[in-house]
Amino acid sequence: MSTPPHTTAGPAAVTVLGLGRMGSALAAAFLAAGHSTTVWNRTPGKADELAARGARRAGSVAEAVAAAPLVVVCVADDEAVHQLLDPLDGALAGRTLVNLTTGTSAQARANAAWAKERGIAFLDGAIMAVPEDIATGDAVLLYSGPRDAFDTYEEALRVLAPAGTTHLGGDAGLAALHDLALLGIMWGVLNGFLHGAALLGTAGVRAGDFAPLAARMTTVVAGYVTAAAPEVDAGSYPAGDATLTVHQEAMRHLAEESEALGVNAELPRFLQLLAGRAVAEGHAESGYSALVEQFRKA
Amino acid sequence: MSTPPHTTAGPAAVTVLGLGRMGSALAAAFLAAGHSTTVWNRTPGKADELAARGARRAGSVAEAVAAAPLVVVCVADDEAVHQLLDPLDGALAGRTLVNLTTGTSAQARANAAWAKERGIAFLDGAIMAVPEDIATGDAVLLYSGPRDAFDTYEEALRVLAPAGTTHLGGDAGLAALHDLALLGIMWGVLNGFLHGAALLGTAGVRAGDFAPLAARMTTVVAGYVTAAAPEVDAGSYPAGDATLTVHQEAMRHLAEESEALGVNAELPRFLQLLAGRAVAEGHAESGYSALVEQFRKA
Repeated sequence: MSTPPHTTAGPAAVTVLGLGRMGSALAAAFLAAGHSTTVWNRTPGKADELAARGARRAGSVAEAVAAAPLVVVCVADDEAVHQLLDPLDGALAGRTLVNLTTGTSAQARANAAWAKERGIAFLDGAIMAVPEDIATGDAVLLYSGPRDAFDTYEEALRVLAPAGTTHLGGDAGLAALHDLALLGIMWGVLNGFLHGAALLGTAGVRAGDFAPLAARMTTVVAGYVTAAAPEVDAGSYPAGDATLTVHQEAMRHLAEESEALGVNAELPRFLQLLAGRAVAEGHAESGYSALVEQFRKA
Repeated sequence: MSTPPHTTAGPAAVTVLGLGRMGSALAAAFLAAGHSTTVWNRTPGKADELAARGARRAGSVAEAVAAAPLVVVCVADDEAVHQLLDPLDGALAGRTLVNLTTGTSAQARANAAWAKERGIAFLDGAIMAVPEDIATGDAVLLYSGPRDAFDTYEEALRVLAPAGTTHLGGDAGLAALHDLALLGIMWGVLNGFLHGAALLGTAGVRAGDFAPLAARMTTVVAGYVTAAAPEVDAGSYPAGDATLTVHQEAMRHLAEESEALGVNAELPRFLQLLAGRAVAEGHAESGYSALVEQFRKA
C-alpha cells in the first residue's frame, strides 16, 4: 500500500494555470493554506501580487506543470485550456489535472478521454461561487471524474471550499451538468424577481421593499424543491395544495397583469405555454412537478 | 377616541364565506384562537366539521354577514365573490370585508371602489401559504387597502399568519401584485429545478440526489435577490462576479447541453433571448440586474 508522496511531506505542491479573478483567488487560497504554489498566466504581470505572497512564478506552462503533482487550470474557456495543454506532450503524465474552466459536459468528457490517453488523472470541476467566496464556508465546488484522484487530493481541494467540496461521480461530465442545472435555478429566481420588480414598479413599489418578501419566498421554495424531488423520481405528481390548472390560472393572471400594466409578458406567457402542454397531456389535476415530463422532451 | 367594540369584548366575531380547503383552514384557525366564527358555504355539508368544533353555521350569505363586523371571503375567483356579495345590498355597510380570493390587481382595485361606494371597509389579501401552513410560523398573508381597516383587525388577522401578516399599502391592488410577483419567483425556481433534473437524468442522476444542491443554490440565490434590489432601484448594474456576456455564454452552454442531450432547450433559449436584448442595448459589461430594463418593456 503506497501513500501519495504529498501526504508524507505536508500539503501537496500545487500549480495554478490562469490568474484571472477566479484563478488568482484559487492560488491565493492554496498559498494561505501553506501549499507550495506555482503560478502561470499568459500575461505574467498578473502573478506579481501572488509572487509577493510567496507563489513561485513559472516562466512557461511546461515549467509550471513540472513543479507540482496537482495542476489546476482555470482559464476563459475550453479552447484556452487546449491552447495551453495540447503542446505539453508528456509533461502532464502521472499528474492530476483539475480543470475548473467553465464548459459543457461534452467538453469535460472529451477532456477526460484526452487525459486518459496521456496517462493523466483528470477531474473536471465547477465553481459555484464568486471569487470572494473561495476558501469560505459559502463556496461550493463540484468535481467529477475518477474517485481515487479526488480522494488523493481532497484535502488540498477542500482548501478552496471547506464546507462545499463534493465529488459527484466518475462521469467527468457531471460537474458541468450540475453547474449548468444550478445556474438555471439562479436565472429562474433572478428573472422572477426582476420581472416582479418591474411589475411592482408600476405601483410605485421599490425593489428594495419587494426584496425581503422575495428572498423569503425564495427560501421557502427551496423546501418545495426538496419535496418535488421524490415525485420526479417516482414519476408521480400529487397535486398537494394546487393542481396545474390552478397554477395555469395564476400564470394567466400574471400574464394579464403584465400586459395591463405595460410590462413584459413573455415570461408569464412562456410559463403558461409549458403548463398548458402538461395539462393537454392529462396533467390538469397533477401537481407542478409533472412539468418535468415536458422538460424531458427535445 | 372610540375603541372598536371587539377590543372591549375579546376576540372579534368573524364570518368566513367559502369553505374550500383554504377557507376551512382559515375558519378553523379563527375558531382555535377563540373567535366567535360564523361560516357559510354554497355546499352546506362542508361546514359540518367546523360546526362540530363550535362554528356557527349561517343559512344564507346575508345571515352570515350579519353575524360579524369582520367578513372574510375566500372562494374560487372574483366572479364567485360577486355572485355572493352583489345581491347583499346594504348588508355589508359599516363592516370590514377581507377578500382572500386569488385575483388580479385590477379586480382588487375595482372591488375597493365597489366597497367604497357601499360604505364597506375593504382589504384585499393574498395567501402565500398552503392550507396546512395557516396559523403556523410559515404562513405569509399580505394585505392592501386602508391602513385603519388593517389596524382595527390586525390582531384577528395575525391568527392566520402569526409571523407573516403584512400590510403593503393603501392601494388595494398591491396584495395581488405581490402575490403574482412572488409566484413568478416560485415558478422560476421550480422550472429551473425540473429542467435541471431532466438534464441530469440523462446522466443517470436522480432528482433526489440533485435536490440538496438545488435547495442550497436556491437559498444562496435568495441573497443575490437582496443584493440586486438596490441596483434595480438605482438603475446601476455593476457586474460584480459576472458580466451579462459571461451569463450569456453560460446560457448558451445550457442550451447546447439541452439540445445535445435531447431535453427541452426552450427555457435556456428564452434566457438567452432576454440576455441578448440587454447586451444589444449596451449592457454587455453590466451585471444581471440590468435585465430589469427588459422586463419593464411591454
